Amino acid sequence: MKYIAYEETLRVTRAALLKAGFTPEKAERLSGVFCQNTLEGVSSHGLNRFPRFMSDVANHVVDVNAEPETVASLGGMEVWDGHQAAGPLVAEAAMARAIELAKTHGIACVSVRNSNHWQRAGRYGWQAVNAGMMGILWTNTCKNMPAWGAKDSKVGNNPFVLAVPRKNGPVVVDVSMSQFAYGRLEIASQNGQQMPVAAGFDENDQMTTDPAAVLKTRRPIPIGFWKGPAMSLALDMIAAGSSLGRTTNMIGGEGPCEVALSQVFIAINYAGLVCEEEAQKRFDDAVEALLASEPIDPEKPVRAPSGNIKKTVERNLKNGLPVNDKTWEKILELAQ
Amino acid sequence: MKYIAYEETLRVTRAALLKAGFTPEKAERLSGVFCQNTLEGVSSHGLNRFPRFMSDVANHVVDVNAEPETVASLGGMEVWDGHQAAGPLVAEAAMARAIELAKTHGIACVSVRNSNHWQRAGRYGWQAVNAGMMGILWTNTCKNMPAWGAKDSKVGNNPFVLAVPRKNGPVVVDVSMSQFAYGRLEIASQNGQQMPVAAGFDENDQMTTDPAAVLKTRRPIPIGFWKGPAMSLALDMIAAGSSLGRTTNMIGGEGPCEVALSQVFIAINYAGLVCEEEAQKRFDDAVEALLASEPIDPEKPVRAPSGNIKKTVERNLKNGLPVNDKTWEKILELAQ
Repeated sequence: MKYIAYEETLRVTRAALLKAGFTPEKAERLSGVFCQNTLEGVSSHGLNRFPRFMSDVANHVVDVNAEPETVASLGGMEVWDGHQAAGPLVAEAAMARAIELAKTHGIACVSVRNSNHWQRAGRYGWQAVNAGMMGILWTNTCKNMPAWGAKDSKVGNNPFVLAVPRKNGPVVVDVSMSQFAYGRLEIASQNGQQMPVAAGFDENDQMTTDPAAVLKTRRPIPIGFWKGPAMSLALDMIAAGSSLGRTTNMIGGEGPCEVALSQVFIAINYAGLVCEEEAQKRFDDAVEALLASEPIDPEKPVRAPSGNIKKTVERNLKNGLPVNDKTWEKILELAQ
Repeated sequence: MKYIAYEETLRVTRAALLKAGFTPEKAERLSGVFCQNTLEGVSSHGLNRFPRFMSDVANHVVDVNAEPETVASLGGMEVWDGHQAAGPLVAEAAMARAIELAKTHGIACVSVRNSNHWQRAGRYGWQAVNAGMMGILWTNTCKNMPAWGAKDSKVGNNPFVLAVPRKNGPVVVDVSMSQFAYGRLEIASQNGQQMPVAAGFDENDQMTTDPAAVLKTRRPIPIGFWKGPAMSLALDMIAAGSSLGRTTNMIGGEGPCEVALSQVFIAINYAGLVCEEEAQKRFDDAVEALLASEPIDPEKPVRAPSGNIKKTVERNLKNGLPVNDKTWEKILELAQ
């Protein structure tokens, strides 16, 4: 593992993006996305994924010149076509538009078809709470999770975000419909660790905590066992149906085909309807009550969702951003 | 178990509701809610729960005379005060209003404070799809689930519904944030059965499939283990924050205090923005692909969410609605 100064990661990724044909403005924004995701502790969808994004650019499945287009509009809702532009740029623009629309419409939604991988889902939840809005957003994915009782993967893990602005620490919940991300299984497998709860099915259709077995079968356990695939199907249908975009079924299996996705961005302007101060007081009480739970292990107090980002940022700014050695080499190559 | 003709259940519950002081119109609608929930296979939130609802009426925590009131409005969003009227009536009215608003606003939301238990969550999802709308809705609850790593229950199981209209069978996903409803644990415990996956924690803080042990500790396993409590907190905060209603923390523990809840009803008018026919085609393909999954057990083909309601209704119309003997006796008493 290398530890690279934040400014340096920004400089190098920006150079790589410029070289790949992005405009200076887009290169600046995109380098911010990848570096900040790692800065905030989500390495799996930060710098470690940058080479894969650049490979999608090289293969023209991410179009450096494309701009999202509004194709339909009704009141507080818009349908966009992402035209396979860089996913994070489309997602930021769509969330920004939902926030803008919610100012006058109370609730607003931008439903996007043909966007690409947005990297870290929670990012757009933070965007909502930073604008004082509640956010509900999700993306569909390729087929990477089996229905309950199935051997083959027909649904996506469809990351889903619920975001609530709180002055004393927003609550941004970023969950995929599978219990563990493949990235986390890979790290545990490399370290010879077992997962704390069943992670998937082995070759004999038995539930297992062995990450290597699940990486082999590609059959992760959905959250809530039979509940996750049901939620996943509905999220997929809402995203694809409301944007007339591709369903997980149309996107297909894992790998380079995970492009032209369907995504939903909802903003709720609660402060435009109720007393923000009183709502904030209730949020504080709710979070404090949760944190005051009696822990099973006295050494492990209960944590609030997204409670540790500040510390992670401070540590990474001080020590440098952690990047896999080979990944950083690859990023340096891309910038040359 | 008794099997009572559907018409008879309607007649008896209506008589009980009239006797309790509801107007004929409200009594008609409410008896429809309880009887239809059982008719469609959700006995736990149908007739079996009717005596409990009537007890809330007798104790004046459900107000037979109250009407919900619109307290704030902005574009496609309204905030209502339910004034502790009967939960199912408030919920139906709120969903109907969201559907109406979505016709001109694309997406709409009614956020309700001080409503009461709406019985079966999925019911209002069906209401949305029957109007050709997508629906996203949820309620908060009393404290009935522990945060991850906690001994005491500080969050709710907050039932959450995603509903997608489909001409060949809507997809209505109705999930609570705990893996198993207490009602299901009670039935399994009475029958001496173990749950198929871990259902909660026992007195020694160990995960167990024994329903009796979980009924004793009142510590159910959340869906996705640590993911469920995080989602639950965010859903609670959005519902209570956007309506300025009570959070789960304010509602308190299990029992008679589960009143004056906060609920959110979102309708998405996808057919107002995209070609409904093409969207429906994609829905059919997605559901058919799921059903074509290769099953682990060839005897157990993969099912679509809410795929069996039609058969259940036919069976119950033919054989009568299943009601616990004692519950039916109690309902008859209430009607006399």
